[in-house]
Amino acid sequence: MINKLIAKIQKTQAPIVVGLDPAMKFIPGHIQKKAFAEYGETLRGAAEAVWLYNKAIIDAVYDLIPAVKPQIAMYEQFGVEGLIVFQKTVEYCKKKDLVVIGDVKRGDIGSTSEAYAAGHLGQVQVGNTMCRGFDEDFATVNPYLGSDGVQPFLKVCKEEKKGIFVLVKTSNPSSGEFQDRLVEAADGSGGKRPLYEIVGEQVAAWGAECMGDSYSYVGAVVGATYPEQGRILRAIMPKAFILVPGYGAQGGKGADLVHFFNEDGLGAIVNSSRGIIAAYRQEQYASYGEENFADASRAAVLAMKEDIAQALAARTKGA
Amino acid sequence: MINKLIAKIQKTQAPIVVGLDPAMKFIPGHIQKKAFAEYGETLRGAAEAVWLYNKAIIDAVYDLIPAVKPQIAMYEQFGVEGLIVFQKTVEYCKKKDLVVIGDVKRGDIGSTSEAYAAGHLGQVQVGNTMCRGFDEDFATVNPYLGSDGVQPFLKVCKEEKKGIFVLVKTSNPSSGEFQDRLVEAADGSGGKRPLYEIVGEQVAAWGAECMGDSYSYVGAVVGATYPEQGRILRAIMPKAFILVPGYGAQGGKGADLVHFFNEDGLGAIVNSSRGIIAAYRQEQYASYGEENFADASRAAVLAMKEDIAQALAARTKGA
Repeated sequence: MINKLIAKIQKTQAPIVVGLDPAMKFIPGHIQKKAFAEYGETLRGAAEAVWLYNKAIIDAVYDLIPAVKPQIAMYEQFGVEGLIVFQKTVEYCKKKDLVVIGDVKRGDIGSTSEAYAAGHLGQVQVGNTMCRGFDEDFATVNPYLGSDGVQPFLKVCKEEKKGIFVLVKTSNPSSGEFQDRLVEAADGSGGKRPLYEIVGEQVAAWGAECMGDSYSYVGAVVGATYPEQGRILRAIMPKAFILVPGYGAQGGKGADLVHFFNEDGLGAIVNSSRGIIAAYRQEQYASYGEENFADASRAAVLAMKEDIAQALAARTKGA
Repeated sequence: MINKLIAKIQKTQAPIVVGLDPAMKFIPGHIQKKAFAEYGETLRGAAEAVWLYNKAIIDAVYDLIPAVKPQIAMYEQFGVEGLIVFQKTVEYCKKKDLVVIGDVKRGDIGSTSEAYAAGHLGQVQVGNTMCRGFDEDFATVNPYLGSDGVQPFLKVCKEEKKGIFVLVKTSNPSSGEFQDRLVEAADGSGGKRPLYEIVGEQVAAWGAECMGDSYSYVGAVVGATYPEQGRILRAIMPKAFILVPGYGAQGGKGADLVHFFNEDGLGAIVNSSRGIIAAYRQEQYASYGEENFADASRAAVLAMKEDIAQALAARTKGA
């Protein structure tokens, strides 16, 4: 799947993933009205609004991008009804030949991570039959529990040729609270390095077991909001694809992103969620009007693609 | 809800939570057969088997215990069908007046944690209507993203008088890989302490904002398999209830548990999952037979209660 992701990035010339994080406040009034008319102001009604919104955006942008990243929390908040639409969204995107990164940030003790890995990336045995649950292409994984919480994902990645992105340095303001803490080197040298570097090294080690053609099935999440850490982590994990959240609404800009990429122009895929799906609410795209929110999303994808291409071109010129 | 949990622990004299982690291999053959006869070897069939199994165990033990802890991964592996049964299990346990700890280990950037907190503990706004998703009483939370990933849970805990247990030192063998790393003190003193202590201090700080009568709404997860760390963390977080997994199947024993409790005999609740729900597979309870698996679970709860009571009594005598 990492090979497919790379091939699609090269074909679309867009190292971009659209975050399908359909918070209710982003969903245009006319869509909410239509959904509530059918199912009432209920969890089902909310889920239907999410689905109509997602579908319109996917239809408007799928040919421009390699991948989408639905954030499961935005569906899970509506309980089972929301998760039905999460699954429907995953299936629809796969039919459109998009790579689907389930932003689930799961991670637990071994036997439990096994269940998460099976449910999101693999298969579960029911009697003598193998069944698939949510069946995304990639999942995001939280490393706090250490290797035995990650190994079950690696096993499924190998079997299914799928992938994971492990949280290393997240995009949020307080990510440094634990991730930046200076940690004593295990070699007794007295050296000290931030925790995210230690986690990054572990990502590289896990990834060495599961290589695709040029990059590993095991990638990392590093926030666009921390470009300097991105540069360091790029060097620590040369074969890990980096999923970069935090572009746009969270403050990251194209010029901040160049260090996340390798010299081959690959190695990173940049996520934008509300910057794309709620583009119609930005001044820049206001002329589209709320009714044409999906066209605004398309314009925002094109602008993001251009911003990143320019930043990468400027780097090449500078070098 | 922390007050209710404590009142129920005092009433049942059992600081015990039964982990409802219904892995397929634990479910007796006759239950699987019945479920598959109705729904086939499908995700629906698997979910039905889980439901029949859970219900029998809950009916057999609910009067002995204060709380249950369904591990959502064991349901999520069966996709939407599994999550329907997760919800059904939560509802059924609440009807039996059990406190429900959703073992979901969620945690994300602020806006996303907000959605998780709403979906698991709080309410979501749909139009002008407030709706509830899974609606557990407590949830487990992963701290790797720092305070802004936890604050949305605190907000909902205050509004709903519910609670969280934050992962501090997990029970699994590789938990030390990151959690035990020695971290430089923030005060520049040159002192070094393991990361779990830093996280524990933060739990105490978060918890001070949300106090129940004697304990905080913010608890911690510390594995029974690490009794020495339990003692240290008990002192660092005196007002945090500690959820202690790892008893029984993972290797923790009653005598290991005493340091997790405060002098008031409170402050900890010990989880056992397969040790209770799959008791019928242990030599000790084999005489019940597979058909009577729920009776074996009841016997295992009584034995666990006795084991912990003896360990606590021995401590009091020793003191």
